[in-house]
Formats: sequence, structure tokens, C-alpha cells
Amino acid sequence: MEELKTRILQEADVISDNVLKLDGILNHQVDPQLIMNIGKEFAFRFQNEKVTKVMTIESSGISVAFATALELGVPLLFARKKRTLTTDPDSFWERVPSFTHGMVTDIVVAKKFLGPGDRILFIDDIVANGDAARALIRIIGQSQATLVGVGFVVEKAFQNGARAIRETGLRVESLVRVLSLEGGRIVFG
Amino acid sequence: MEELKTRILQEADVISDNVLKLDGILNHQVDPQLIMNIGKEFAFRFQNEKVTKVMTIESSGISVAFATALELGVPLLFARKKRTLTTDPDSFWERVPSFTHGMVTDIVVAKKFLGPGDRILFIDDIVANGDAARALIRIIGQSQATLVGVGFVVEKAFQNGARAIRETGLRVESLVRVLSLEGGRIVFG
Repeated sequence: MEELKTRILQEADVISDNVLKLDGILNHQVDPQLIMNIGKEFAFRFQNEKVTKVMTIESSGISVAFATALELGVPLLFARKKRTLTTDPDSFWERVPSFTHGMVTDIVVAKKFLGPGDRILFIDDIVANGDAARALIRIIGQSQATLVGVGFVVEKAFQNGARAIRETGLRVESLVRVLSLEGGRIVFG
Repeated sequence: MEELKTRILQEADVISDNVLKLDGILNHQVDPQLIMNIGKEFAFRFQNEKVTKVMTIESSGISVAFATALELGVPLLFARKKRTLTTDPDSFWERVPSFTHGMVTDIVVAKKFLGPGDRILFIDDIVANGDAARALIRIIGQSQATLVGVGFVVEKAFQNGARAIRETGLRVESLVRVLSLEGGRIVFG
């Protein structure tokens, strides 16, 4: 997606060889028109999958997942993050180790919103190691819903997350793949 | 907003005399078309305010604030919640006591996205005691941006948040006002 590459080159901050900050367009400030174009692209790529619901994890994925759900004409369901051991018994939950925050987070989805009849498109902003993504995929598995595919706005291809998900046989669509951030330079793939 | 009242009556859960759960349409699962209609309504009400940026606080406010920003053709900026004392020195931050989680949260906005030239519309999903809202209003004050108004999807009018904000002279628009939840019955005002 050329528009997205251009905006990343203009506005992203490379913090280290591993960390790309997209605070200007995605993770803190959000450009609604760009996000709508991203949503349209995801909706186009998955248009034949009979999606019944778009899912994401709060918070940074919400705007792109919302735009995708709006285009597909289906609800959005976002998993909540809870830093607690007490979870509603009527919820699916999975534990996620967080390298950024140095603590464990539980992600939670109420059972009443997710079930065997659903065909889920999972949309997220950035995939690195993919810990949170795999936790949501396990929740979808628990619910016996069908996961028709996964869409990432940015795939950090030098980390293992998206590859590990593809290797399970799932369809993964990344709008932009970043091969390297070495020396502060963003290399797309 | 009659569509919203109807949906609340159909899908909200009254948990106690104080707690209204909107997990089916706003806070967990989201209906994109309803949210777009909410965004259009906020954009209409504040159309003459020369808004340069819509702000909210992650996570539940993001979808409605996104829809409002899309309609107004301006960026969305969402304050991040951090449960840490170490904050980027280039950020505005304020502390929020949380009754729900029983802990203190800091909300954080990077200075580079907010300044004296901005005319901010602050959109949030539900206002109860208004602690988080007042913290964001203090951040906008720190930045010397102009806060042109505040829009809440649901105002719990039996709690003090929205009233306290109105009493400071700010324009507050609530799409739906809930006067009481007593006995499990939702009374609109």
C-alpha cells in the first residue's frame, strides 16, 4: 500500500533497530482518512470470506478494525486487556506476556459475543513477536468460531510474529512489511 | 438521539443502580453504523467551532471519536493510559484515580501533537464522576490549546461529572442523559 509507505517514511520515528513508532498516524494521533483507506483495503482483500465480525485488541487496533468493520458492514469486537486475575466466568481469556510493559496482561472477550457461527477477521496495527495476536487467536479457537484471516497494517518481518502465524496455515495479509530498521533506515519488503 | 436510546433500551445491561454496561454497542462490541451516526451528530453540533483536532482517552472512546474526526475532516488524538511513574518528558500527563480498577492511572499526551494553535473537541463514551475527563481537560489546559467543547455519548446525570464540567463554563453536549438506573430501569432525561 504505497500511501501507507509514504506516510510511514514521512512520519514514523525509528527508536532503535527494533522499535518503530507510528504515533503520528496510528498509535496516538490518528489520520481518519488514511485509516479509512486502510479499512477499505482490508475489506477488499477479505471480501469473499463471508466475515461476520471483525476483531482486534484494545487500543491501537481499534481505529483500523473499526474502519474495516464499517466497510464490511459487520460489528467490531475488541478484546479488553485486564491486569487482574479475576475474570468474568462468562468470558474467554488468555494471558499475554508483554515485553514493552514488563508485566503480564490478560485479554478478555465476553462469550456472548463470540461463538461457533462466527467467521472472524482479526485486524491489528503492528505485529512484532505476535504474542498478543496469538493470544487472541487462541481465544477465537476456544470459541469455535472460524478465523478466516488476519490483517496487519505493519508487519515487522525481522521479528517472528507474522511468520509463526502463517506457518499455522492461517491467511495473513500485511499492508506493509518492514524488513529492517537498522541504522535508523526503514527498509520495506 | 432516539436511535441511541432505542439501542440502549434493547442492549444495555443495568448492573446496579450506578452501573450501565454498553458492551453490546460501544465498550466491547461496536456497531460501526451506529457509531458513524453518533460521529455525524457530534460533527453537526460542533460544526461551527473550527475544530482542528478531536481528542479522547483510550480505549472505549476511540471509535466514537474516530467517527467524529472523520466527519469533521481533522485528526484524532487519543490520550494513552500508563500505569507507570516514568513518563516521556516531552509529554503532558495527569493522574486519574480509578474507582473501577481501584488504582491510579496516568493519562499521557505527547507535546508534539497538542499546542496553543489547536481547537480541541473532546469526545468520550460515558461520563460518570468525570475524573478521567477532567484530567484530559487539565492536559488541554497545560498545552494552551482551546477546548471548544465536550461531547459525551451517554451522560449519567445522577453522577456529578458532566455537571461539574458545565459549571466551569465549558459547552457539554450529551447525546443521551440517563437520570436513573434504580430498580434496573433506565430513565432518560
